[in-house]
Amino acid sequence: MKKVVLVPDSFKGTLSAREICEIMREQLQRHYPAAEICSIPVADGGEGSVDCFLTALPGEKVLCATKDPFGQEMQGFYGRIDGGKTAVIEMAACAGLPLVEDRCNPLLASTYGVGMLIANALERHAEKIVLGLGGSATNDGGCGTAAALGALFFKADGTSFVPTGGTLSEIAHIDLSRLDKRLQAVEIVAMCDIDNPMYGKNGAAYVFGPQKGATPDMLPVLDNGLRHLDKIIQAVLHKDVSKIPGGGAAGAMGAGVAAFFGAKLKRGIDVVLDTVQFETILQHADMVLTGEGKIDAQSLGGKVVIGVAQRAFQHHVPVIAVVGDIEDPIEAAYEAGISSIISINRRAIPFSESRHKAREYMARTMDDLARQLKAFGI
Amino acid sequence: MKKVVLVPDSFKGTLSAREICEIMREQLQRHYPAAEICSIPVADGGEGSVDCFLTALPGEKVLCATKDPFGQEMQGFYGRIDGGKTAVIEMAACAGLPLVEDRCNPLLASTYGVGMLIANALERHAEKIVLGLGGSATNDGGCGTAAALGALFFKADGTSFVPTGGTLSEIAHIDLSRLDKRLQAVEIVAMCDIDNPMYGKNGAAYVFGPQKGATPDMLPVLDNGLRHLDKIIQAVLHKDVSKIPGGGAAGAMGAGVAAFFGAKLKRGIDVVLDTVQFETILQHADMVLTGEGKIDAQSLGGKVVIGVAQRAFQHHVPVIAVVGDIEDPIEAAYEAGISSIISINRRAIPFSESRHKAREYMARTMDDLARQLKAFGI
Repeated sequence: MKKVVLVPDSFKGTLSAREICEIMREQLQRHYPAAEICSIPVADGGEGSVDCFLTALPGEKVLCATKDPFGQEMQGFYGRIDGGKTAVIEMAACAGLPLVEDRCNPLLASTYGVGMLIANALERHAEKIVLGLGGSATNDGGCGTAAALGALFFKADGTSFVPTGGTLSEIAHIDLSRLDKRLQAVEIVAMCDIDNPMYGKNGAAYVFGPQKGATPDMLPVLDNGLRHLDKIIQAVLHKDVSKIPGGGAAGAMGAGVAAFFGAKLKRGIDVVLDTVQFETILQHADMVLTGEGKIDAQSLGGKVVIGVAQRAFQHHVPVIAVVGDIEDPIEAAYEAGISSIISINRRAIPFSESRHKAREYMARTMDDLARQLKAFGI
Repeated sequence: MKKVVLVPDSFKGTLSAREICEIMREQLQRHYPAAEICSIPVADGGEGSVDCFLTALPGEKVLCATKDPFGQEMQGFYGRIDGGKTAVIEMAACAGLPLVEDRCNPLLASTYGVGMLIANALERHAEKIVLGLGGSATNDGGCGTAAALGALFFKADGTSFVPTGGTLSEIAHIDLSRLDKRLQAVEIVAMCDIDNPMYGKNGAAYVFGPQKGATPDMLPVLDNGLRHLDKIIQAVLHKDVSKIPGGGAAGAMGAGVAAFFGAKLKRGIDVVLDTVQFETILQHADMVLTGEGKIDAQSLGGKVVIGVAQRAFQHHVPVIAVVGDIEDPIEAAYEAGISSIISINRRAIPFSESRHKAREYMARTMDDLARQLKAFGI
């Protein structure tokens, strides 16, 4: 075993992808001290995404002034990779739920600060921006971000304003002519791992509003605001972003960045694998380890393990999925290119107990895997 | 993968060793259709032991007339292996608990029928007898078996009788001079997987009496009977079998066969591995799979997995333990020669649920193991 590539998703609620990479590396190194181990913890666009990229690739974390969801000045951050050509920004860094805690209010929360982070990246000559959508406290359709970058939103009386979730319905006109010119030469890729559209029963407000503090009577207000934003975008910008899968991500920021900046929405795993140049990393790899908290045939599509398996399979590298629960039958996973699946469950105990043992179970399962491969001379 | 050796113990309460061998074989053959697969389901001396040997080795099952624990005529059986030179007899075949069901009474139950099976094997020129001790309904210290083979037990008034659990105290003298002469040229190896001595708090009566139907007031009667038998054996036969580990097996038949026939008591796994000539089977083997329901460092001594691992390790063959629960830390198992351990638990559910999935979990875990090894070109 000369080279191992680690590309795990997080185990929701128990282990982050970075923690899993650390545990896997530690155990593998015990048995294969000379092996090259590439850690690519998979970012999902939410909190921690920047750190994931900076674990996988050389780069730096940039600290800079920005604003929190309610306009308070704060210190934000983003990552610079690829020799500074690419900036990785997680919108949760200045518009995330943990920042607002007991002040949750998606009627008022804004993504303005995200635009400030983007502006800072443009200052530093970013040619590409990877924008993580996830963990948001907002429902402003990305209007705040656009406003911070020069977009103008007007009310019917001609006054300009920065719309938030509660005031989207007041938008009468949008003017993008003052948008930061540097954006024209910049590719923006938005990462999102959900398929929800901008609005409607499966849209941003109804599905994710409640966890952002929206009361039942706020939901139609938020949803109608997004419907109105869509109408204005269609009328003024001649774009229809209402049905893009993932348009509802981060309080419909997915739809907004597609409309205002021409951003492309992609699955986290695809963005990660493209950004790290996974095919290059796969060269001379003896094994790829991926995984997630639970693998089942019904929800394989778009999942990390499948994204990893499909690419590794083409390069004839064995892919082992190290997971929490396996929901059998799982033949579809093998057909997609996964070589084999290992559960970290080492005792027949319920998840309420085993979740506290996730770290230990992962470590010991990796220890056993390494021992086994070594016993066969691999 | 050209040759795989399967040597699993049973998973108590869910899968027999033979079932495990079948499942393992079926899954391995899916991925390695040309591989030679040697199945050695491990007998523990109890019910099913004969079938285990006949699965591992060519041989035949002999049906013959014998008596049940209460003297009723019945058809018993034993196995002939090694070209007829070795007979494998499980005492449970005619003195086992399932035969008595609601007629449980260790005061009255006899191992006489076991002696009849041995006599039949002697008729057929057996040179060695492997005698499985386990699952008994008796507590007669093997006196019934000895009586069936010619041993004479006398009461104080000079009358001869066949002692049972309730009448051991009446033995005044033992005469082995009429014992079947053919026994002198026969090696008897008794298999037992317990360490309990003949009598006392950890002895046959107190520990195993209750599951044979002994009421609390019967226990001292049974225990005192065995103490008395020991005294007579010491006085007449000049042997002390009272402290032999496993002497308490099968209602102290362990101690009895040691005293009356000079039988050696051995662990089931050692008898099995010696009988199948495990070292020869290991030649050219690529992998040994063993396993048990639960592996933990505290109770490794004498266990199947350790017995298997120690021998396979010497022959440099990887040994994988496929188990139910792993009680970490389990480093002692690796030190004993186990290459790696795999749990069949595929979901975080309690044993009350997972026990019903044992067959499926075993099959799928084996499927994944085979897929994995194949992916690495093994």
